[in-house]
Amino acid sequence: MIDNSGSVGIVETKYFTFAESPNEMELESGERLGPITIAYETYGQLNDRANNAILIVHALSGDAHVAGYHSENDKKPGWWDFMIGSGRPFDTDRYFVVCSNVLGGCKGTTGPTSINPQTRKPYNLNFPVVTIGDMVKVQKHLIDQLGIKKLLTIVGGSMGGMQVLEWAIEYPDIVASAIPIATACRLSAQGIAFDEVGRQAIYADGNWKNGVYLNHGVIPAQGLAVARMFAHITYLSEESMHNKFGRRLREKERYGYDFSTDFEVESYLHYQGEIFIKRFDANTYLYITKAIDYFDLYRDYGSLENAFKNVNAKFLVISFSSDWLFPTSQSKEIVKALKINRKHVTFCEIPSSYGHDAFLLRNDDMENMIANFVSHVYQEMESR
Amino acid sequence: MIDNSGSVGIVETKYFTFAESPNEMELESGERLGPITIAYETYGQLNDRANNAILIVHALSGDAHVAGYHSENDKKPGWWDFMIGSGRPFDTDRYFVVCSNVLGGCKGTTGPTSINPQTRKPYNLNFPVVTIGDMVKVQKHLIDQLGIKKLLTIVGGSMGGMQVLEWAIEYPDIVASAIPIATACRLSAQGIAFDEVGRQAIYADGNWKNGVYLNHGVIPAQGLAVARMFAHITYLSEESMHNKFGRRLREKERYGYDFSTDFEVESYLHYQGEIFIKRFDANTYLYITKAIDYFDLYRDYGSLENAFKNVNAKFLVISFSSDWLFPTSQSKEIVKALKINRKHVTFCEIPSSYGHDAFLLRNDDMENMIANFVSHVYQEMESR
Repeated sequence: MIDNSGSVGIVETKYFTFAESPNEMELESGERLGPITIAYETYGQLNDRANNAILIVHALSGDAHVAGYHSENDKKPGWWDFMIGSGRPFDTDRYFVVCSNVLGGCKGTTGPTSINPQTRKPYNLNFPVVTIGDMVKVQKHLIDQLGIKKLLTIVGGSMGGMQVLEWAIEYPDIVASAIPIATACRLSAQGIAFDEVGRQAIYADGNWKNGVYLNHGVIPAQGLAVARMFAHITYLSEESMHNKFGRRLREKERYGYDFSTDFEVESYLHYQGEIFIKRFDANTYLYITKAIDYFDLYRDYGSLENAFKNVNAKFLVISFSSDWLFPTSQSKEIVKALKINRKHVTFCEIPSSYGHDAFLLRNDDMENMIANFVSHVYQEMESR
Repeated sequence: MIDNSGSVGIVETKYFTFAESPNEMELESGERLGPITIAYETYGQLNDRANNAILIVHALSGDAHVAGYHSENDKKPGWWDFMIGSGRPFDTDRYFVVCSNVLGGCKGTTGPTSINPQTRKPYNLNFPVVTIGDMVKVQKHLIDQLGIKKLLTIVGGSMGGMQVLEWAIEYPDIVASAIPIATACRLSAQGIAFDEVGRQAIYADGNWKNGVYLNHGVIPAQGLAVARMFAHITYLSEESMHNKFGRRLREKERYGYDFSTDFEVESYLHYQGEIFIKRFDANTYLYITKAIDYFDLYRDYGSLENAFKNVNAKFLVISFSSDWLFPTSQSKEIVKALKINRKHVTFCEIPSSYGHDAFLLRNDDMENMIANFVSHVYQEMESR
């Protein structure tokens, strides 16, 4: 039974457009992009001092719809619903919660599926390659537009955690606290390799048509499904796959001795592929994975110590014991660099068998730790 | 400089055909297959007592050409050349070394690319699904044909290790010693998942044409390349990828901000995909991965203890510390079951940063341990 007391209820995605010609936004690549529409949702109320706002930033395939339902008939709530609402860790009775779809996304914010005003066709691969820094720059425009003076907390997992780090570094005077979860200050060679093979799976689909599939009314569904199934394995752990599926057969007593589905784990992966192609866009997958690959605080600041030199945020860094895509060692790198700079940082590796995806699942340790951390920072801020 | 003293020199692949109609071989699935041709190579001489033979069994993409060169102009020797030759661990001055391509393969032994005598076209997907047990049964025919009474050692890594285990269990009176390397008595759920996504990448290629691409004169090159690139990541370790490539850019100073190759690791993977499609067949990839998925000594014998109850072979079990596809824990399961049965077993986890592929690379520990183990077993046998 789902406990829906505390739910933010029916919510609506809103839109804000800026960077209209001739004020296009300059990207890290040097290219200029505009207009930019940003899709976002908010829950709770901004207080008079405009200092109770929490910005939630999403991972690869997330969107602005982080909590509540879009209609009475909506079967599933937002992607981190259990974290947001009355009495929940991000308590909407106290805090003003904001979440937006990232730049380059396919869930309302300008990205490769958006109409290029110059050609009146989808951008497709003419969309510029964007970075985590560009995503954050766009979010800053939204935060200003909403009248938020101080971010009580910025929080996110995986690629969301990269945005958290970027925010704390780029806007030290705005970010009071930061919660990077299951993330890294740069992707490993193995991580880049995984992303690249996912992209290659999309390129290999004949329906990709060099990126202009939307103009042909088709989608590279099989290629995108392969990329997703592949990535999905890296989001789980060997242990969780063993516990959930083991070598159990799918609706049969003996092997089929053919290439139909033999094992439960195969069936599960097929399902993950099928639902993903209905909700995500292939070119967007290319752009977002590229942004993840490019993120590198070492490269941008010369060293990690240097990267965190000017941050003012208090940090809560969280990793999960069975996460092998963004292992604890990468979180510890962040913690070490913050410590060297004598910054306020709390770190916890949460025991979990669920691998990288653990941050999306209910976990008492994570929920309590985050609730207490945010509450503490807020009390301190209010008592000043 | 390559040390070629001790090389077996120029060698030739030979062929042996059996299971001619009406004596087709019965497969584990219950289907019958024949005729079956087996491609094999031998080095050294069988001694008078016919007890100095070593059978080397290969992994997923291996073949019968394990040592030496096929011509004077051959640039690369066989896939485990450093292990075989005069003065090498499998010393051809003392031992008679045999290696054959597996059933279902595409390197000379009957498989899906072979001509189906009934249709006079390639079998394609009409080839029956074969198992590790079937592969071993075919090898037994070869061993008999060669007049080998006793296998001094059977040795192989990965899928080769599965064949080693099957041999020791199925033919306890023939196998004097067994060296399963970087292997398991059954694949994990994660392993099955990796294999299945590889197969899906092949299915997703329009040129696969439901498996009858050979009839159309095309190959599903992109799909096979994606499967290989993906699998290749699992053969390496995070550490070896970090050491070899890190985040080094490929022939550029700054990011390209496009979808061309940015990182060295991407370029390396592309290369791995390209060379693989030139030397391997897509349907064969489906069949061999299926055989690996099906291998399960627990399932076949009720328990692992039971599986090893009647083996007579002495075992040397080897794993590699950074192998996460066939981790040390899986080798330890084998060791434990052998120990419970009071069998003779030596176990070593060799420290290596090279991941699963370590068994294919030179390693003093591995070479010395194997050389000494085989020599010891042979001396014991000769002194009886």
